Amino acid sequence: MLNMESKPLPEQTADKIIQYIIDNNLQVDDKIPNEFELGAILGVGRSTIREAVRILVSRNVLVIRRGAGTYIANNTGVSDDPLGLAFTKDKYKLARDLFQVRIILEPEIAAMAANMATERDIEVLKKQCDKVENMIKKGEDHMMEDVKFHQSIARCTGNAVIEKLIPIINTSVAVFANITARQLKEETITTHRAIADAIAEHNPTDAKHAMTMHMLYNKNKINEIIAQRKVDEKI
Amino acid sequence: MLNMESKPLPEQTADKIIQYIIDNNLQVDDKIPNEFELGAILGVGRSTIREAVRILVSRNVLVIRRGAGTYIANNTGVSDDPLGLAFTKDKYKLARDLFQVRIILEPEIAAMAANMATERDIEVLKKQCDKVENMIKKGEDHMMEDVKFHQSIARCTGNAVIEKLIPIINTSVAVFANITARQLKEETITTHRAIADAIAEHNPTDAKHAMTMHMLYNKNKINEIIAQRKVDEKI
Repeated sequence: MLNMESKPLPEQTADKIIQYIIDNNLQVDDKIPNEFELGAILGVGRSTIREAVRILVSRNVLVIRRGAGTYIANNTGVSDDPLGLAFTKDKYKLARDLFQVRIILEPEIAAMAANMATERDIEVLKKQCDKVENMIKKGEDHMMEDVKFHQSIARCTGNAVIEKLIPIINTSVAVFANITARQLKEETITTHRAIADAIAEHNPTDAKHAMTMHMLYNKNKINEIIAQRKVDEKI
Repeated sequence: MLNMESKPLPEQTADKIIQYIIDNNLQVDDKIPNEFELGAILGVGRSTIREAVRILVSRNVLVIRRGAGTYIANNTGVSDDPLGLAFTKDKYKLARDLFQVRIILEPEIAAMAANMATERDIEVLKKQCDKVENMIKKGEDHMMEDVKFHQSIARCTGNAVIEKLIPIINTSVAVFANITARQLKEETITTHRAIADAIAEHNPTDAKHAMTMHMLYNKNKINEIIAQRKVDEKI
């Protein structure tokens, strides 16, 4: 939204569509007016509308459902890679950098979650904890469900920025720096359960400690893998 | 980068251009091959290349300089509003939510910065501290330079994720939740200086404390403004 005046017309129109979405309080899965109607509302031509919609699709604001229309996208306005981490070359350093941030954020978030969680939040969190545990036991790939577990914790805080931020960081781990996957199975089951239980009991200290434990298992594993890699490279 | 197989061709081509940028180690301000050359390299038509480039421009990966060519954008791959906060209605709650995250992150980052800063980092940080102080004294709008001050601290950590994250959060404060601007002038000058000095002396404890103080001045001011607003609304 910076430098509005210097933007080309399709970008300006994209910003106006965003404003339209906010003003009309449109939510995820709501349908937006068609190209013709939008053109009339915003006073621009259909080809400009089409280009603006294309921009908003690529920013994950809108999603086109063929033959049905254009809708507000899930996780509105957050792209696949909002931190631009696809451009990082050393994925081992990236994994370490991501975990340094998670170790700062997630224990505090677990404590906030324990303070703020509603009964409904706790129900969702426990279900997600069960789901991940079952997948690990069956040997299935649980990475994306693991991201959702941490997202449920973030949601317990009632803080909109934390809700946006945690899935971004954790998806980055899954997509760009997934070097501990399929390891730490037992430790993940045990610490996830301890976190969920402490939040359910509204115990911020235990929630923070359980999350710290969970993060440190991962940190130590990453360091171990990096150390092993250095040994391998010398051979 | 998720669900590659289900993406339309221009999106897939955009991902391939990103891979080309990584493989060829292209940096900010480097020029990429023209449409014709890119089409030949990636084996797709020029209209697909053109659409892919348009997508990457809207994601702030590429920037088109009229008559000169297409270049790697500054702050590559990070859009204006990566957290999608433009969709938040209540900007007072947003300001509070953003500060909750900053209070968790920034004191720890200041401590890391004090541990890791190089002499070059410290030089840049001190210059930025002077710049903000001079602008405040002259009564100029220092918001974006203030963001750069916090960004210089983030850069001292050597952590690539922190370097990406802090400007995103702080720009969001500046753009979407700028409710303490032009207040706290004296407090900003004093605490900024204390942070910069502690980092320069490689003193993580003092850096963390000074940053905590800086954040709490802001938090208290936000709470004061919100409380005042509630009183105003009742009158």
